[in-house]
Amino acid sequence: MELITSAKNTKLREIRKLAKKSYRDDTGLCLVEGIQPCLRAIENGYHLELLVYAPEILQSEVALAIVSDLERRDVNVLRVSKDAFAALSLRDNPVGIALVAKMRTTDLSHVAPRRDSILTVLFDVKSPGNLGTIVRTVDSISGAGVVLVGQTADPYDPQCIKASMGTVFNVPLVKVASADEFLTWCKRLQIALITTSSQATVDVADAHFTYPCAVLMGSEGPGLPRDILSAGHWSVRIPMHGQASSLNLAVATGIILYEVKKQQTSK
Amino acid sequence: MELITSAKNTKLREIRKLAKKSYRDDTGLCLVEGIQPCLRAIENGYHLELLVYAPEILQSEVALAIVSDLERRDVNVLRVSKDAFAALSLRDNPVGIALVAKMRTTDLSHVAPRRDSILTVLFDVKSPGNLGTIVRTVDSISGAGVVLVGQTADPYDPQCIKASMGTVFNVPLVKVASADEFLTWCKRLQIALITTSSQATVDVADAHFTYPCAVLMGSEGPGLPRDILSAGHWSVRIPMHGQASSLNLAVATGIILYEVKKQQTSK
Repeated sequence: MELITSAKNTKLREIRKLAKKSYRDDTGLCLVEGIQPCLRAIENGYHLELLVYAPEILQSEVALAIVSDLERRDVNVLRVSKDAFAALSLRDNPVGIALVAKMRTTDLSHVAPRRDSILTVLFDVKSPGNLGTIVRTVDSISGAGVVLVGQTADPYDPQCIKASMGTVFNVPLVKVASADEFLTWCKRLQIALITTSSQATVDVADAHFTYPCAVLMGSEGPGLPRDILSAGHWSVRIPMHGQASSLNLAVATGIILYEVKKQQTSK
Repeated sequence: MELITSAKNTKLREIRKLAKKSYRDDTGLCLVEGIQPCLRAIENGYHLELLVYAPEILQSEVALAIVSDLERRDVNVLRVSKDAFAALSLRDNPVGIALVAKMRTTDLSHVAPRRDSILTVLFDVKSPGNLGTIVRTVDSISGAGVVLVGQTADPYDPQCIKASMGTVFNVPLVKVASADEFLTWCKRLQIALITTSSQATVDVADAHFTYPCAVLMGSEGPGLPRDILSAGHWSVRIPMHGQASSLNLAVATGIILYEVKKQQTSK
């Protein structure tokens, strides 16, 4: 099989364009780089358009098993040189494996919460890194999914996929245009809303949550919009004992989700 | 006062070099950018070499108050154009204020733990962003300090200062050359060691910690070294219910510190 050595190769150029959201939206495709993300995209049945790998640098046994598995299946394969792969990669030390896969988000009509579901809902979260880190945490509590409301970062941004360790491929991702649509849906399905705010008077550890529930988190700076805060069944805070008035968004979400899950599993 | 408009100005070039660790080490100085970080460096009595600000873009009242306060004091001031500031800045939307300050780390001989102290100890943590996020969390629990062991990222890296929201200027930072030195010190002062590992059999919420204590966290990939793990009084885990086997380091540290602090305050 041919080995592509030029970073200017037409196919590689196309793939590189997937770093841009507009091109991902146009094509419905995303670029998946690294062993864990590739593994999770495959294991979770994502439609694969293309495998790209660099035999020169690919050494991990897991990655080599992925390659031979996909070569046996109907997936298109591109073998590239180390340098050609580096031109495609967003990492400092690329391991030499990437996939082009079809993106998969859904809407609320396809979400059927169970009695014990914990949803995580993000409003206008800007940083793809924060989003990915939050998705990784949602995976760790076996959360029912991440609902993205408003101008939230793209879960298929390469930075988000990386920060998520590929868990964007197994955590259900739900896009919702407006907060109203989401609130109406929660009301209909009797999903309890947990909001977080530095103004809240109840510590997260002192609330007694019910399930199914949705943990609502606002954007990095301003937090949750007022109308959302007033719609919550519980408004909780994380106790702050220092000079700064807030935590990093992904850390705050982690602490809240950990508490909500802990209360549930210790019942 | 003169307004510097050229990004090639000699003084600005010197300041820009502070983005490099080697130049910070040579000069003992760091670059502090943004309102919160500047405020915290000033409030915590850091020695200030220079104030740099861009009158064109600086609008926040807090920032303008900082400028007039420092202009009254003996601090050198550099007024620069918007473009000259942008050349210095590491942010997408610079607000137009920065300080050059003297770095301040200490060693174990200057740390005197109290009966209720919670120390956070990081081994070989690579990412300045993770380090800053962790320092911000340590501030939020009013932690006794962050001990940096081995090849850990520089707390005065601009990315770390930013991620910490400037809390690197109020959280005590302690550098230790070797793990042995730290373990000996803990033993002498009867500081209990809490290690974290996915192999541990006790959930962090089920342990009953004593104080003073030190929460030990390993690097992003491999975690804590084995000899450190075996030295711990408690080895705890965060329950993982998903497909990924670990959390982001800053999120994991946040959950552990939150639990350790909660147990203490609820006693």
